[in-house]
Formats: sequence, C-alpha cells, structure tokens
Amino acid sequence: MTQVGARATGLPVVGMVGAGQLARMTHQAAISLGLTLRVLAETADDGAALVTPDVEIGAASDPEAVRRFAKACDVVTFDHEHVPNDLIAGLAASGVVVRPGAAALRYAQDKRAMRQRLGELGIPVPKWSDDPAALPRPYVVKAVRGGYDGRGVWMVGESDPLPSGDVIVEEKVTIVHEVAVQVARTPSGRTRCWPVVETVQNDGICVEVIAPAPRLSHTLNAQAQALATRIADELDVVGVLAVELFEAPGGLLVNELAMRPHNSGHWSIEGSTTSQFEQHLRAVLDWPLGDTRSRAPFTVMANLLGGPSTNLAKTLPAALEAVPGCSVHLYGKTPRPGRKLGHVTALGDDVDETRARARQAVAVLRGDVS
Amino acid sequence: MTQVGARATGLPVVGMVGAGQLARMTHQAAISLGLTLRVLAETADDGAALVTPDVEIGAASDPEAVRRFAKACDVVTFDHEHVPNDLIAGLAASGVVVRPGAAALRYAQDKRAMRQRLGELGIPVPKWSDDPAALPRPYVVKAVRGGYDGRGVWMVGESDPLPSGDVIVEEKVTIVHEVAVQVARTPSGRTRCWPVVETVQNDGICVEVIAPAPRLSHTLNAQAQALATRIADELDVVGVLAVELFEAPGGLLVNELAMRPHNSGHWSIEGSTTSQFEQHLRAVLDWPLGDTRSRAPFTVMANLLGGPSTNLAKTLPAALEAVPGCSVHLYGKTPRPGRKLGHVTALGDDVDETRARARQAVAVLRGDVS
Repeated sequence: MTQVGARATGLPVVGMVGAGQLARMTHQAAISLGLTLRVLAETADDGAALVTPDVEIGAASDPEAVRRFAKACDVVTFDHEHVPNDLIAGLAASGVVVRPGAAALRYAQDKRAMRQRLGELGIPVPKWSDDPAALPRPYVVKAVRGGYDGRGVWMVGESDPLPSGDVIVEEKVTIVHEVAVQVARTPSGRTRCWPVVETVQNDGICVEVIAPAPRLSHTLNAQAQALATRIADELDVVGVLAVELFEAPGGLLVNELAMRPHNSGHWSIEGSTTSQFEQHLRAVLDWPLGDTRSRAPFTVMANLLGGPSTNLAKTLPAALEAVPGCSVHLYGKTPRPGRKLGHVTALGDDVDETRARARQAVAVLRGDVS
Repeated sequence: MTQVGARATGLPVVGMVGAGQLARMTHQAAISLGLTLRVLAETADDGAALVTPDVEIGAASDPEAVRRFAKACDVVTFDHEHVPNDLIAGLAASGVVVRPGAAALRYAQDKRAMRQRLGELGIPVPKWSDDPAALPRPYVVKAVRGGYDGRGVWMVGESDPLPSGDVIVEEKVTIVHEVAVQVARTPSGRTRCWPVVETVQNDGICVEVIAPAPRLSHTLNAQAQALATRIADELDVVGVLAVELFEAPGGLLVNELAMRPHNSGHWSIEGSTTSQFEQHLRAVLDWPLGDTRSRAPFTVMANLLGGPSTNLAKTLPAALEAVPGCSVHLYGKTPRPGRKLGHVTALGDDVDETRARARQAVAVLRGDVS
C-alpha cells in the first residue's frame, strides 16, 4: 500500500465511499487509531460529513467523483452497497486498493447472486426462485437490489399482485428467532467473530439487538459463527461481514449479507473490547484483528427511530436524566417520524433489566414519554 | 443559552479553546451526543484540528480571535489553562456563556492563588511560602503559572541557586502514593465523582494511571472524593475538575487542580460508563451527569511518550498484534522522543496482568521492543 495521503504520523488514509452514520462512527474509531478517514459524501449534511474535515462531495455512482476521491486514499472501503460493481472493479484495475473487492461485494449487492452462490456452497438459505409459479403462495417477494430496512420486501398473499421490477420469490419461513453474527476478515485470511446477537424487528426494521443472543443454544451459536467464517472465506470478504440469519425449526437459514459495519454490530462500541468500526479499519488495512470479548454479560442496543418529538435538544437531556447509565449515539440527522436518528446502548448483568433501560432511553428520546 | 450555531438537529455547539488531544477526544464524545464541537486551534496541525471540520485558527491569548470564535458557540470551554483570565472574564461580561468561569479558572492557572484559597478553606496542601527563607532546604520550587508535565518544577538542594521568575517554594513531601480524583459539576451544582486513581510518575511526568487506586484505603478513597467535591463546590467549578493528591504519612495533600478533562481520566473512555469527555460536555451544557460506574475491576492507562521508533505505521500494527486486548489512542502528533503521542488502555480482573498488558503495548509502540 503506497501512502498517498500520509500525515505527519505516517499513518494511512482510509477512504469510505458514503458518509452516513456508519462512516460517522468509523471516524470516531479512526481518530483513536490516529488514522485519517476521508469520506465521499452525497451532501455536506451527511452524518459523517458534519464531523470530519476530509470530505469530498460527490455521488457514489459517479465514476469521476469516486476516482478523484480514491486518489487521496491508501485503501477504499464502503459505508453502503450502492456503488456500481463495475465501478469498483475498474477502480481496482487502475491500482486502487479496494476492500472488500468487487467480486465479494457482488454478493452483498445482488440477492439472487448471493442465494445462488450460498446454494452452491451448501449453505442453508430459505427456498427461493426466480419463477413466481415455482413456490406456493403466500410467499415473500424481494427486490434483487437496493432493499434495506424493510424496503424492497413484500409479503404476497393468495390474491395480491406481484411487485414489478427485478425480484425473486422466497418461502415464508417460520421464524423462531432472528439472529445475526459478524465476522471480520483480513486480506491475509485471518478472521475473528463476535458473539451471535438476537435482532428484534418491527415492520421489517431492526429495533433492538441483544448481545449475546439470550435464547440461542450453544450449538447454534457455534454453527452461526462457523457459517459466517466460512462465508467470509469462500466469498473472499475483507472487512466486517454481517450475516443475518433466521433460526427456523429445522435450523439456521441465511437471510442477508452486508460487507461493512452493520446495525447489528453497533452494540460492540461499548459492549466489546474491539468495536466493529475499529475492527473494520484494522481488517481493510490488513492489520491484526482485535479481541472481541464482551465487556458485560449483556449489551442491548435499541435503535432510535424518529417519534412524536423533533426536539432532541429537549429530549436528549431528558433521556440522560431518566437513564443515567446508557450511551446515546446520534447521527446528526434532522428528526422526522420513522427516520433512523441514532441508537442507545446499555450494558448489564440481567437481560430484561438491560433491555428495559435501553428502551426507556429511546422512548424518552422519541418523545413517547417524558 | 441561545443557540447560535444550531444544526439541523437543534443541538448545541460547544466551543473549546485549544485543539490538543483533550479537544480531539472531546470531539469523539461530541459526535456520539450529536453535538458540534468547534475548536480554536493554534495551527491546522493541532490534534483536534486534524479530525474536526469546525476549526478557527487563532491564538488562545488573542482577544480578537477568541471573541470571533466564541460568537458561533453556545458555550465556551477549555482544552488548557493558557487563556488569560481577564480575557475570559471579558468574554463572560459580553454575554458569552463560559464554563468554567474566570473566577474558578484562576485557581487552576495560578498555583499561589490556589494554595491560598485552599488554605483558607482548611483543605490540606503541602507547606508552602512565597519566601524561600521560610522553609528549610531541600525544597521544591514551582512556577506560579504555566508549569505542566514536570516543567516549572525544580528540586532545590542545599547549594542550588533559586530558579528565577514568579515562583513559590514548597516542602518536599514524603509521598506514599500519588493519586488523583475527578469530579464533574454542573452550573446547577450537581456533582459526580469517578473512583480515585493511582498515578505513576516518571521524572515528573505521568506514565501510568490505575483505576481504582489499588493501594488506597477505603477511608482515604472516600476522603479524596469528598475533598474534590468540596473544592468543586467552593470554587464554583463547572465541568470536570481533576484533583492531584499526595498520599503522605499524615494523610492526603492537594498538589494540583485542573478544570478540564485530564490525563488522569483518560482511562474512563473504556473503563467507565461515562467518560470524562462526555461528562465534561454534559456538565458545561448543564445537562444531567452520567453514571460513573466502572466497566471492569481494573482499568490501566499507560501514556505513550515518544521512544526510539518514529514509525507508528509499523509499531502500531505490531502493538495490536502483541496485545490484542488493548485500546490505543493516538493524538495525531509527529513522533519525537519524549513527546506525549497517545495512550493505551487495558481492562482486566487482575491489576498486575492489566498493567503488564498496557505497558507491553506502549513498549512496542515506542519501539523499545518489537
């Protein structure tokens, strides 16, 4: 890696395409390590653009903007999946160090390609097809590209019309729990997992993450970690890989992959010795990975989705008063109902008490209670 | 507090005069709380100026620069003690919210004023005098203003000449241990202490902090916390107050005061539910203070002073390899022997093992061992 943007310390410049909350929290980790995080932001108001000085404004889909941005970076990585795959491949061909690479990222960008590939590897996924007639209704229809936070996913009953666009159909799985596991992998193939977490969804949006997953058996925990590590190895992922899984009556099924820090890993900022943001930086730099031991028996992360109040200057101090022992993370966004504005993390010995604390802080922040 | 610089979130802008490592780490805490940290930096290469976008360049002693800087802040606070006291008083008189205020800061800026005032309050300090003839040699001579990290302090033996300048003389105390305690205080008078820590000095420079102080009795721990809280109340300190103490055979003696986040509190980033940086922000905003419970039985912070290697791009990965379970904080400075470049924090159950880990990481970072 040639140091193109080295500062007085000689430490590398990591470029992140996209400047949302993931880049914002990655910047906090980069500050500790003495790294420079450079971000490519759509607008100057993006969460990370508000808090870091090394910002280039441009669209992640604009080849010229991405190339100009990459020139001042030692390694380029991503805050989201919306960079065209051929653009990423072209960057790498021109000598830019891109991690994860285009070949791996394809499986986080294209649900069809991911399911095909995991199927070839014998990794369990829900039954799916390109052909709507191949599965009995009701089934789930998913957009092949661009879906997130419940968008791009439709439950389709007996008489519902089929959503248009490039979609696949998938069996409606009987879900015992939803869980997720993250693993970091370096270019030299070292890996390190965090404990499997339980994710609690509401209308397809993750509202809560409990680490470790309190209701998952030891066997399934080990299986999930082995599965994630195998996927990272087989797909040659570099950086953090998040694997979202269904625990179904017959075992684990892979639902989604993300090759970047992920909402299911925000708990690790306070809850783990090494956060997913620091680990992602270490992995894409091919540096040694950090210890992923937990700092408490339970860590609970609750997402803050915009609620009745838009006055954070009032609800934030109220939440800090109501719950002195929680950590609040805001993303710099203008409050709007339903918008993901931040998250709250609580650590504790008892899972129910810890969940109650995180949820109470979120309720006060939203203005549901005062 | 009028919101002069509010962003889309409506959350306040905190101004910090000075942009060293304390401002740098305060920025990390401000990002989580959704606050904007604005810094007044001497140069664009200052530790905090490298990592935050809202930077004004100017000298902390330049009234015009400080006034211009303060205009875009909801509250102004400090990274160091080198802002002239009358400048701070003038700012407040012109309507700027300055915390801590000039009347309190005087006692962190002027060692003579501090000793006089603590003496009036009946708080134990080492025997001292303005008159070199009043104390038997050998004694310690201290510059009244501007000393830090061993600078401005001289051991003066029988035949040594007296250092020039505005100095006081102080008895050479028999030190059992050196300890420090931090307390945060809001304008409305709420306070919250962290556990007392032991500080390990080398040539007058703090090299290690152990939280909690492993060799301090429960009684002295409680006395130190009560002392710090009383000082904060009596001097009307707002923000974090660090009190450095000698444990002498006859009891505790106050050595130094700092009214800002302090090296003795860096351990709290990982080791406490609320870090000193977040707590300082909460205090100067008159927001509720956070829980200061520890996250581990012991937290050890070791300072990284520049050593034989100046190649952090090499020694940082080596340190992460050698000690997977530690947290490294670098300050963005060009490595030079003896320069305070960063610190390392380790959490653990056993004080000696935890100290060994922190020290090993520092030794590798310095290039003492590979």
